[in-house]
Amino acid sequence: MTSFRPDLPCPADDIIQTAHVMADAARAAILPWFRCDDLTTDNKRAPGALGEDRFDPVTAADRAAERAMREVLARLRPDDGIFGEEFGASGGTSGLTWILDPIDGTRGFIAGTPTWGVLIAVSNAQGPVYGIIDQPYIGERFEGGLGRAGMTGPTGPRTLRSCGDRSLDVATVMTTFPAVGTPVEGAAFADVAKHARIVRYGCDCYAYALIAMGQVDLVIEAGLNAYDICAPIAVIEAAGGIVTDWQGGPAAAGGRIVAAAARMQHDAALAILSKVP
Amino acid sequence: MTSFRPDLPCPADDIIQTAHVMADAARAAILPWFRCDDLTTDNKRAPGALGEDRFDPVTAADRAAERAMREVLARLRPDDGIFGEEFGASGGTSGLTWILDPIDGTRGFIAGTPTWGVLIAVSNAQGPVYGIIDQPYIGERFEGGLGRAGMTGPTGPRTLRSCGDRSLDVATVMTTFPAVGTPVEGAAFADVAKHARIVRYGCDCYAYALIAMGQVDLVIEAGLNAYDICAPIAVIEAAGGIVTDWQGGPAAAGGRIVAAAARMQHDAALAILSKVP
Repeated sequence: MTSFRPDLPCPADDIIQTAHVMADAARAAILPWFRCDDLTTDNKRAPGALGEDRFDPVTAADRAAERAMREVLARLRPDDGIFGEEFGASGGTSGLTWILDPIDGTRGFIAGTPTWGVLIAVSNAQGPVYGIIDQPYIGERFEGGLGRAGMTGPTGPRTLRSCGDRSLDVATVMTTFPAVGTPVEGAAFADVAKHARIVRYGCDCYAYALIAMGQVDLVIEAGLNAYDICAPIAVIEAAGGIVTDWQGGPAAAGGRIVAAAARMQHDAALAILSKVP
Repeated sequence: MTSFRPDLPCPADDIIQTAHVMADAARAAILPWFRCDDLTTDNKRAPGALGEDRFDPVTAADRAAERAMREVLARLRPDDGIFGEEFGASGGTSGLTWILDPIDGTRGFIAGTPTWGVLIAVSNAQGPVYGIIDQPYIGERFEGGLGRAGMTGPTGPRTLRSCGDRSLDVATVMTTFPAVGTPVEGAAFADVAKHARIVRYGCDCYAYALIAMGQVDLVIEAGLNAYDICAPIAVIEAAGGIVTDWQGGPAAAGGRIVAAAARMQHDAALAILSKVP
């Protein structure tokens, strides 16, 4: 394990250990609320919004988990910056920023599905250097970056490695909502999906973990925020995959995202997605 | 626990115990194949089929699991009939038939998602009397019928109880494929879904378990087989929910299915679905 990198203000192990303490804290904060009758849901969206946009849920579990992670950072790494979905940005002096989504897939969380996750990423000026995707209920944790590419879960630890080059006609393609985003974005996804062997929906961040596990070839989404994608970028890149925007550029800021297991799938998707105005 | 029912050829406990032995055997047969690089997939569909229909996958895991369950029945209940997805029907003399789907959601299984399941149902002449939905990877088992309505999982045992009457505008609605079935079936689903607060896709049999857990209000599907729905019927009805076809009639033969947490959601869905020719 490399403990010194000139682009980091501290040993890599220090970052990794902090991230795992945060993920443990988020698990403890969230699990009492999962499938709990007392979970109440607020709507972050303004009245009058339409379609999927009319309901952007946040729960006590989202807030409790982000609070728990921020408390860990205040204790262990008070000089780092933080950007979290629920409580916004706070500056740091170390050059590192923690990018947090306490529950990615709050709709799935409310529905009781086990494919939401806690997303924890650490970025320097160049982008994410390390990330965790954690699924508290199943007890799965995926990590990538700073020399790591692995997972733990019900059947034990495993190295993460995305699958190799495959043509679209034997590929598995995923997105969360069938509409994906705007009509033109949805049509572009459908154009890629119609060439694929299997198309699956609804997994939120878990779909990105499936790329890192070598199970899925492409995840295509739109309208993402930085906190939705920074941890998946770190995990997927560490596993050998590729994450960019629909033009092949950097993905860490969010927006339209294509995550691919390997170059061939990425090229095939970009050939279609890059034409979207 | 009731051990005698005049409609059964044996004590209820005998059926329940056999079903759990079968579910354990299926778990052991399937898990070595889950997320395994060596998993090969055959296509049950004829060449030239189109759309979702062009690929109907079956894997070594499906076959091994059904074989394992049939071995248990041959040993413990040789006089019962069997109807399984992979190896068809064999008659019995007891008046009971075991209806088996070794992996419901084989596409999800191939993609590595954790929401496929093993479905085990026991029917008499009137329909399913007991059922199990098992998710081997998470380690969750849902059972209903013969006096039982419960689950076990990573956070311990729990009683199953579907949620009470709720109006559609606060409901969570699910289906597996966004297209649902034919264009007119898909349009009917969309007509229900547009009134709901949350719409989720892709969970196969796990969606039915979510109704029994009180998490989801409606699951609407079409084109199902008996082995896809008999176990969910037993589990959901034991938890207080309702499963019918789109006309409100019996659902055990498959086809167009609506599963509801309570009467109000069922009525609201049927008001739309029953108009589909």
